[in-house]
Amino acid sequence: MSLLQVCSHAGHLPLSQVAAVQGRVVLADVERVCVVGSGNWGSTVARIIGQNTERLGDRFDRSVKMWVYEEIVDGQKLTEIINTRHENVKYLPGVELPSNVIAVPDLAQAASGATILVFALPHQFLPKLLPTIQQARSSNAIAVSLIKGMATGCDISVLMGANVADEVARGDFCEATIGYRSKGNAELIKTLFEQPTFQLRLIPDPVGVEIFGTLKNVIALGAGFVDGLGYGTNTKAAIMRIGMHEMLRFGETFFPEMMKDTILESCGVADLITTCFGGRNRKCAEQFARGPRDWKQLEASMLGGQKLQGVSTIEHVHKMLRDKQVVGRFPLLDLIYRICMCACEPEEIVRSASTCYVAD
Amino acid sequence: MSLLQVCSHAGHLPLSQVAAVQGRVVLADVERVCVVGSGNWGSTVARIIGQNTERLGDRFDRSVKMWVYEEIVDGQKLTEIINTRHENVKYLPGVELPSNVIAVPDLAQAASGATILVFALPHQFLPKLLPTIQQARSSNAIAVSLIKGMATGCDISVLMGANVADEVARGDFCEATIGYRSKGNAELIKTLFEQPTFQLRLIPDPVGVEIFGTLKNVIALGAGFVDGLGYGTNTKAAIMRIGMHEMLRFGETFFPEMMKDTILESCGVADLITTCFGGRNRKCAEQFARGPRDWKQLEASMLGGQKLQGVSTIEHVHKMLRDKQVVGRFPLLDLIYRICMCACEPEEIVRSASTCYVAD
Repeated sequence: MSLLQVCSHAGHLPLSQVAAVQGRVVLADVERVCVVGSGNWGSTVARIIGQNTERLGDRFDRSVKMWVYEEIVDGQKLTEIINTRHENVKYLPGVELPSNVIAVPDLAQAASGATILVFALPHQFLPKLLPTIQQARSSNAIAVSLIKGMATGCDISVLMGANVADEVARGDFCEATIGYRSKGNAELIKTLFEQPTFQLRLIPDPVGVEIFGTLKNVIALGAGFVDGLGYGTNTKAAIMRIGMHEMLRFGETFFPEMMKDTILESCGVADLITTCFGGRNRKCAEQFARGPRDWKQLEASMLGGQKLQGVSTIEHVHKMLRDKQVVGRFPLLDLIYRICMCACEPEEIVRSASTCYVAD
Repeated sequence: MSLLQVCSHAGHLPLSQVAAVQGRVVLADVERVCVVGSGNWGSTVARIIGQNTERLGDRFDRSVKMWVYEEIVDGQKLTEIINTRHENVKYLPGVELPSNVIAVPDLAQAASGATILVFALPHQFLPKLLPTIQQARSSNAIAVSLIKGMATGCDISVLMGANVADEVARGDFCEATIGYRSKGNAELIKTLFEQPTFQLRLIPDPVGVEIFGTLKNVIALGAGFVDGLGYGTNTKAAIMRIGMHEMLRFGETFFPEMMKDTILESCGVADLITTCFGGRNRKCAEQFARGPRDWKQLEASMLGGQKLQGVSTIEHVHKMLRDKQVVGRFPLLDLIYRICMCACEPEEIVRSASTCYVAD
């Protein structure tokens, strides 16, 4: 979910407080990869990684372990289905997984000896899983987070971008950003993920990558209200642009080490575009503006079990703004919060938008 | 159309070569406004300005002259229709114009004594009109260009942004950017245009505003190809993001005085979003990708007399890249050119997108 929420809910250190870790001096002879998570996005990245380890066999163990939360689908275990039919019929139906992607229901077994951990699962499951992973992983393991804000005690890079899972799985061209602390480790992760249709750029700013990845879901709620009210692209583009400036200001205010130019990477402007035109926060907010105004009900009826991240994020973000007494400098975030939480009318986002010109 | 084309076709100085003009020392007692042009956008801004001069009567003559190229609509002169029914039935039907907007068919009469000239018409008409305007205008007139790249011998500001005319006319919230050389004059123009639903920000970078306004139509062709090929928002957001970087690089290469941060204004990222999702360049390029591959025919059948700006712009821009021998540093612009002009397959924009990672 977010840097902020994982930290506060789970008691972990925020990523920004993890001490910088240098690239490992002694690299493993062969890297062993474990993908922790097997939903839509986890299965998609396991597919990419499996294709790459097959191709790069001298550097990587070709088999990729994918930890799967076991469930029964049509009377059969999901791990068995994946390992025999090479398809995650529940979360990524219709897409063939490479046969070297091995579904493993036992977490300790999946993570055993892993030198590269790829986290792709809802953040709320982490606290329960991390101790097991810590024990099983290789002592010099590195990690890449496709969620946000976690600490495992090993060097973490953060991979984010304009990545709708189904489109990535289909092999459509797209980009992503890796925010890193250790460049050497990030380059290893880039090797593991990169394909001609999946281009990665390395940026030494994991915090910026996380901030934009977190707040874009909030801005997408604003974009959804605009859609639900029937406004056109002028208005939506204006809200998105103001949102970009408040994301930058949020970074300056709370994480001054953030790099401003990260906004021009895939994890910034491109992910914002994708999320504000196609994402589930936008979709639910569009319906919210039309009514009924009940997030729980909309989440249950529209998302088929997926979570609406923007709403819990804006609650947490607004508390940070209040605690630091800077609400007035974030008029758009404040408006979105009040529409989501305080029965403020969605129309206010348009009526009050002219107040969003805070002084620079 | 563009800074570049007006200059080369009409022999005018580019805006960037117009000497900076200081704010006028002696302001006119009362400013007299002439809107040159009465199409969709010209009529929309005449409506805004008319509402404002009515409200700001001590500073502005309340009547706003709008030069209208005379034509007969349903047996009646268009100027007569506008002046009696207060509606431009041909170019902005269904929207009431304030009664103080006066349609004038004679250009010299419309511009007579004008202290503020607002240019909102296709650039190709300018060369014929400018001498008449030069003679009729007040000697200390200032101008604001809603087109691009013109020189009238007076101080010019440039107004651009995510402004689909019909949405602005409807009073939907939107933003725009004024790029200026003289801040005092730009503030006067801001006063003339601004409304609660039409927010303007002043930026001392008229060149940047023009570059983004010009090149966004080219990037929108790329976005249209992606749409026509059936790709989703990942791919489209990636092309738009690469496009932003090549727009910035174009500025650095040809107009080093450009300010990079202008990309974060309405004339930059927001206008790019609007144009790549809603604009006519995108629309025609989508159809082009599906076939037939004939721009003239698409323009004639899809735009109802409006012009397709992106195609002529990329021809001109590509010539600039060739002349300076920097084509290799602009792989996306080069791809779009070759798809438009050299029978390169639209699919190449996706196949070759990974080559668009030029070194920084």
